[in-house]
Amino acid sequence: MLTKIHHVGIAVTDLDEAIELYRSAFGAELVGRARNEKDGIEAAFIHTGTGEVELLSATGPESPVGKFLAKHGPGLHHVAYGVTDIAQALADARAAGLELIDAEPRIGLHGSLIAFVHPTSLGGVLTEFVET
Amino acid sequence: MLTKIHHVGIAVTDLDEAIELYRSAFGAELVGRARNEKDGIEAAFIHTGTGEVELLSATGPESPVGKFLAKHGPGLHHVAYGVTDIAQALADARAAGLELIDAEPRIGLHGSLIAFVHPTSLGGVLTEFVET
Repeated sequence: MLTKIHHVGIAVTDLDEAIELYRSAFGAELVGRARNEKDGIEAAFIHTGTGEVELLSATGPESPVGKFLAKHGPGLHHVAYGVTDIAQALADARAAGLELIDAEPRIGLHGSLIAFVHPTSLGGVLTEFVET
Repeated sequence: MLTKIHHVGIAVTDLDEAIELYRSAFGAELVGRARNEKDGIEAAFIHTGTGEVELLSATGPESPVGKFLAKHGPGLHHVAYGVTDIAQALADARAAGLELIDAEPRIGLHGSLIAFVHPTSLGGVLTEFVET
């Protein structure tokens, strides 16, 4: 059902600094940048071969990423798996007793269909499905 | 330089329970299991298409994963990138000013050459290179 690790989400305090760090340390290429006021995030997508790194900064302290940064500091935030059929993935997850953050798929920053599973259901790991 | 996200490492309190969770929730297949007394870990590798999940449990409270679990609880632990030349990756990382945990590559649980970069150098993210 899972086709790949689509991306790893990393919470950062300064997006430009983080992009430069991944460029200088790994030669990693910036492939896109997007801002979503509603979710309170500005994100940069860094190409790492197969799979991307999504650097996530908060647009304000009350946004979910802002609260994450205040509580945990910068670091690993979530993991996203590619799936072929996100509706089926959500149905399977629900059947397995997982608590869903998104009962229905929604459009993510990538323009793909996404949905999050609550970390309490998965040993503390905020987990995302992406229909690719 | 980075060829892919090789795996995501997740710290868990009960390895058998975590394997069963990933199987039941995602239909994810267990591809291997290994124990390293020296590093104080027992790990299970879960196939997720391209890229794996490495579920990591501690063999004791004083092991690095044991200390991580005591401090943070279960959750995302590290991200590992595939590289074609780990010696070069370490040289580039050192040149970029990153603090290395492993100055030289060593053999990891997968049997591949691995090396870790310190999380303080990379915005709180424990980062691993794997020569694949």
